[in-house]
Amino acid sequence: MKTGIVGASGYSGEVLLSLLLDHPHISLTTVTSRSLVGQSVESVFPSLRNRGKGLVFSASDPEELATNTDLDLVFLALPHGVASEYAIPLCKAGKKVIDLSADFRLSSPEIYEEYYGHPHPYPEWLEKSAYVIPEIAPSGWKDKQLIAAPGCYPTSILVPLLPLFKESVIGTKGIIINSMSGVSGAGKKLAEDFLYCERNESAKAYGLVKHRHLSEIEEQLSLSAGTEVVVQFTPHLSPMNRGIVTTIVVPHAANSIEQVYNTWKLAYEDKPFVSVLESGTTPDSKWVCQTNRVDFSAVYDPRTENLIITFAEDNQMTGAAGQDIQIMNLWNGFDETAGLV
Amino acid sequence: MKTGIVGASGYSGEVLLSLLLDHPHISLTTVTSRSLVGQSVESVFPSLRNRGKGLVFSASDPEELATNTDLDLVFLALPHGVASEYAIPLCKAGKKVIDLSADFRLSSPEIYEEYYGHPHPYPEWLEKSAYVIPEIAPSGWKDKQLIAAPGCYPTSILVPLLPLFKESVIGTKGIIINSMSGVSGAGKKLAEDFLYCERNESAKAYGLVKHRHLSEIEEQLSLSAGTEVVVQFTPHLSPMNRGIVTTIVVPHAANSIEQVYNTWKLAYEDKPFVSVLESGTTPDSKWVCQTNRVDFSAVYDPRTENLIITFAEDNQMTGAAGQDIQIMNLWNGFDETAGLV
Amino acid sequence: MKTGIVGASGYSGEVLLSLLLDHPHISLTTVTSRSLVGQSVESVFPSLRNRGKGLVFSASDPEELATNTDLDLVFLALPHGVASEYAIPLCKAGKKVIDLSADFRLSSPEIYEEYYGHPHPYPEWLEKSAYVIPEIAPSGWKDKQLIAAPGCYPTSILVPLLPLFKESVIGTKGIIINSMSGVSGAGKKLAEDFLYCERNESAKAYGLVKHRHLSEIEEQLSLSAGTEVVVQFTPHLSPMNRGIVTTIVVPHAANSIEQVYNTWKLAYEDKPFVSVLESGTTPDSKWVCQTNRVDFSAVYDPRTENLIITFAEDNQMTGAAGQDIQIMNLWNGFDETAGLV
Amino acid sequence: MKTGIVGASGYSGEVLLSLLLDHPHISLTTVTSRSLVGQSVESVFPSLRNRGKGLVFSASDPEELATNTDLDLVFLALPHGVASEYAIPLCKAGKKVIDLSADFRLSSPEIYEEYYGHPHPYPEWLEKSAYVIPEIAPSGWKDKQLIAAPGCYPTSILVPLLPLFKESVIGTKGIIINSMSGVSGAGKKLAEDFLYCERNESAKAYGLVKHRHLSEIEEQLSLSAGTEVVVQFTPHLSPMNRGIVTTIVVPHAANSIEQVYNTWKLAYEDKPFVSVLESGTTPDSKWVCQTNRVDFSAVYDPRTENLIITFAEDNQMTGAAGQDIQIMNLWNGFDETAGLV
Repeated sequence: MKTGIVGASGYSGEVLLSLLLDHPHISLTTVTSRSLVGQSVESVFPSLRNRGKGLVFSASDPEELATNTDLDLVFLALPHGVASEYAIPLCKAGKKVIDLSADFRLSSPEIYEEYYGHPHPYPEWLEKSAYVIPEIAPSGWKDKQLIAAPGCYPTSILVPLLPLFKESVIGTKGIIINSMSGVSGAGKKLAEDFLYCERNESAKAYGLVKHRHLSEIEEQLSLSAGTEVVVQFTPHLSPMNRGIVTTIVVPHAANSIEQVYNTWKLAYEDKPFVSVLESGTTPDSKWVCQTNRVDFSAVYDPRTENLIITFAEDNQMTGAAGQDIQIMNLWNGFDETAGLV
Repeated sequence: MKTGIVGASGYSGEVLLSLLLDHPHISLTTVTSRSLVGQSVESVFPSLRNRGKGLVFSASDPEELATNTDLDLVFLALPHGVASEYAIPLCKAGKKVIDLSADFRLSSPEIYEEYYGHPHPYPEWLEKSAYVIPEIAPSGWKDKQLIAAPGCYPTSILVPLLPLFKESVIGTKGIIINSMSGVSGAGKKLAEDFLYCERNESAKAYGLVKHRHLSEIEEQLSLSAGTEVVVQFTPHLSPMNRGIVTTIVVPHAANSIEQVYNTWKLAYEDKPFVSVLESGTTPDSKWVCQTNRVDFSAVYDPRTENLIITFAEDNQMTGAAGQDIQIMNLWNGFDETAGLV
Repeated sequence: MKTGIVGASGYSGEVLLSLLLDHPHISLTTVTSRSLVGQSVESVFPSLRNRGKGLVFSASDPEELATNTDLDLVFLALPHGVASEYAIPLCKAGKKVIDLSADFRLSSPEIYEEYYGHPHPYPEWLEKSAYVIPEIAPSGWKDKQLIAAPGCYPTSILVPLLPLFKESVIGTKGIIINSMSGVSGAGKKLAEDFLYCERNESAKAYGLVKHRHLSEIEEQLSLSAGTEVVVQFTPHLSPMNRGIVTTIVVPHAANSIEQVYNTWKLAYEDKPFVSVLESGTTPDSKWVCQTNRVDFSAVYDPRTENLIITFAEDNQMTGAAGQDIQIMNLWNGFDETAGLV
Repeated sequence: MKTGIVGASGYSGEVLLSLLLDHPHISLTTVTSRSLVGQSVESVFPSLRNRGKGLVFSASDPEELATNTDLDLVFLALPHGVASEYAIPLCKAGKKVIDLSADFRLSSPEIYEEYYGHPHPYPEWLEKSAYVIPEIAPSGWKDKQLIAAPGCYPTSILVPLLPLFKESVIGTKGIIINSMSGVSGAGKKLAEDFLYCERNESAKAYGLVKHRHLSEIEEQLSLSAGTEVVVQFTPHLSPMNRGIVTTIVVPHAANSIEQVYNTWKLAYEDKPFVSVLESGTTPDSKWVCQTNRVDFSAVYDPRTENLIITFAEDNQMTGAAGQDIQIMNLWNGFDETAGLV
């Protein structure tokens, strides 16, 4: 299987490259970046030295890529709005596409426009694509040609909540979600706010009250609940490179803790990258960093009648590159854990 | 005014020492610690070198301290349960006492026992003492002999919420509170969990669902609301030395944002250490670190009808030593900001 | 005494502002920045909220400043090459100037050009100015009108070495200096290399073999030794906001440790910001952070016959703003420690 | 090949476990720890969840291990002095042993006693063992039964220097070495000095002037130079979990830079984990973290006639567990990179 990455200049691109270079079932033939043309992968990412297999960044014209016979599957690591300009020609040329951007995450072009500020460029392709978190992907997703990989926060919210919604174990109203993320979640952005001295020894909330990821979170929650779900989502920055910790408070959850665990057990028992911790054990982002695993657990608070779910993932693995590899593995019939730990 | 610190071996003790050594209106005559007897303040805390004024740690017998004529006011930086053994003799001897422990923070001995695991040793003293966050202290507190300084988290919750409760601007049900704290909040504890490599590059929730500070948070909220208030409080650790950021979600807050700001304005307009940020500006713990100031703001989310309050403080200043100095200043008629920035 | 800061938009500018706002003997009348005109100090630096005294950034025309009657003393926090364009008119107008840039640190215009890449714009002013590290300043410096404050690394090298050179306690050949600096030393630079995720969890040497500070280090060492001194200086970045730790290896130092300590004692006994630690106690940058104090000590290694000096300072205090205040204090007859800890 | 780890409770043990669990050519049959008996690997190290293959810590009696038929090769992750008590019986029973402690790193029992404070318990075994850094191991090492893996600092010094000494490219006198290490290098030690708040935002030198690793550094340098070599080695702590950066200054190195590079090329051209950077490119510990690769380069300073070598490794990979796996691979004829990146 010949694969390529379009736009691999950022933090997720680097992790994706690293995973693909060592993947047992594919060969990485093409790496493109408008700003890095002609530079070797090893010189751009010194962490990959001695492992870059001579790969050099090339230019990234969509039509040219579409006719590239050395490409069966392409990862798009491009900004929102740009990704779709590559995705469509590649799909039309018969190639499989895993898109890391938000361009095909939503089924509603209206909500896309509301959250991303411009009309969706290819609304007719929204139903030809699937939004895939591997553990909770819709049946039939493997028949699509275009897979939208989720944002980093949504996985930490959808994995614990979706099975509970599907089985009506918890109510859908009044859910409050707080997340803490490492700084790499913002990407390699040259902004004063992301300088070392600004983020080090600092914590803060941001993205109130309508972070872009909220759109995909609510769409997926609503789909699984069969009713419109509205949640309060507040992300925070924490001074660390990687990791997301999410705390979800579900009100009016009296007596549901056992059902919660039973539902999770049924949904995730055989999933290699899911680890449901016993009630009372709170996950630590450190435990999952550098892995594609997620850890989560729940406690019930009889005083407030709330269920509190806490969740940890590596935002660069489960929240980005690791999950992308997992999608590729499942899509192509490889072992789900191939190339991942 | 002659002051002393009993038990100044930890992180808050060090900051308290630093502030008292430079305070313009007091002289620091006595510093005690069972484990540091005979050692100079400068040798124990190298950060205070050239500033220690020859102070040496002495033994800390309560009766001896009670008869010490070089002491008008004493700060107790002792573990819960131990502090009261010093507080009572000192108070009886006519000295003013500011207690940093939890021993006199609650008015109910039953709740003390529920949260701290042993009967309150001096329940009759609970009404002779006052729980004081300077900005929202009960009238008459200056006539008490014993002041209980609050825990680090409660200030970040009570300062924004209490005026709103008093004026019935928001409801009291279903409030969800999440905090992120720097690691110094746990004190100088020799436990594997607080080793550098464990906390660095790590975030996690802890203390679910009944962190000890919850007891004082709920008591104060209930007092100001005039009804029993139950909240969901989930603290988190963030990899930084100092700082607390708290995010509070208040449900069913339709149309109250203007009233919220008006109420805060009335309550805090002339408070030197309170900074109410305009709606949409989210505070950063970095902005207040090394200061005794608190920053907070609120936004209203019309989709959820929730009010979201975000708050930042330095847990070692406002959350501990800085606030203690502020209490001393007000209690003794000094300028409120004396010795503080 | 009316003071101003020209160009206070960076990290050192912020600390300088903070110190001047609370200084007991001066009033801060003017703060300029080309990029921040019209913005209040409090809005630009949220850390200064409630303390900014209404100060607003103004434009910074040299001639206008020269005629500003609200300015007796001006701090220049400008880039190399730009500072001198302000310094000369201000000096000519009779104002005292403390220049934080490198423009007047060197006495040789040739070496200036070698290290800074352009001819010195005002070579005739080099002898009208003085390079001042307060503890080791040349006699007569107070009569100059223009003071060049040193770079952050030089203080950590010159304070321990200069008295030893003056007294010929150690030789001048083969000295090897390694420094570790916090990231704020690089200033508030929008470069990928200074993004949080690049510097966090990273250590590296940089600036080999001719870091700009080497020019002033060697000039001062040569002046005090009375012979040309050449040293090996290798700076390193350490993932922390503040702090410099310097390790100096002096060869052929047999039997000099006692003399070293005697010399330091004579030179620094009455200096409020110098703390000479006993041999065997190694300073920690944490001990001096947020203070203007420096800590250092030496050990002799009989196996190698080397003397090893280790030194710690806060690069934003002793290495920048704190030292600037100290210079102002001494220059104007204030108490040396006024406004500093 | 059946392998085991004795004493795997610390940071290096955890990384070693992680690497062995996924190694393609061995099965990990036994993991012992006196303090963790009966606990599962997954419960002790949450980072290994879903990967622990049911392994449970067992007791660690040397004789019992010696007769364990499920063990062909054993890694000893034990304290100095304890390791040898296991090594000898295991070797006598015909098992291969890779010892991570210092017990067999030195060939001289006198120097062992000088640096480790007690007589060597099995001096007769010193010549039956080999000190192995894979890239520069002595010929014949594979015939030994007992391999001493090096300390974390020595690799960063010996890899760049040894070939230069062997080929007499540089002199052996007056070499000055400074290293910066992440905090995990100290192990999982419950000491105040290693608490998060002590190490965070702190840099310092330590271990002056006779750090234990100096003994193996000087012995190996002397062996390769054919003359007694004495160096100045000063380690420093940097606030990060992992990584070592070493800066070596070699005096009197006029005109040797080309020879240096030629020598390194000959020695390391085909080594998969060595990356010699071009002169002027300074390595960053971040580039090699989570890999078993080392990066280094050199520059010549014509002003001082010094050669400056800078080097980076991951102290938990190349400096510990990664190198141990590499030794196992080579010793047993596996591909050198098996199970490593």
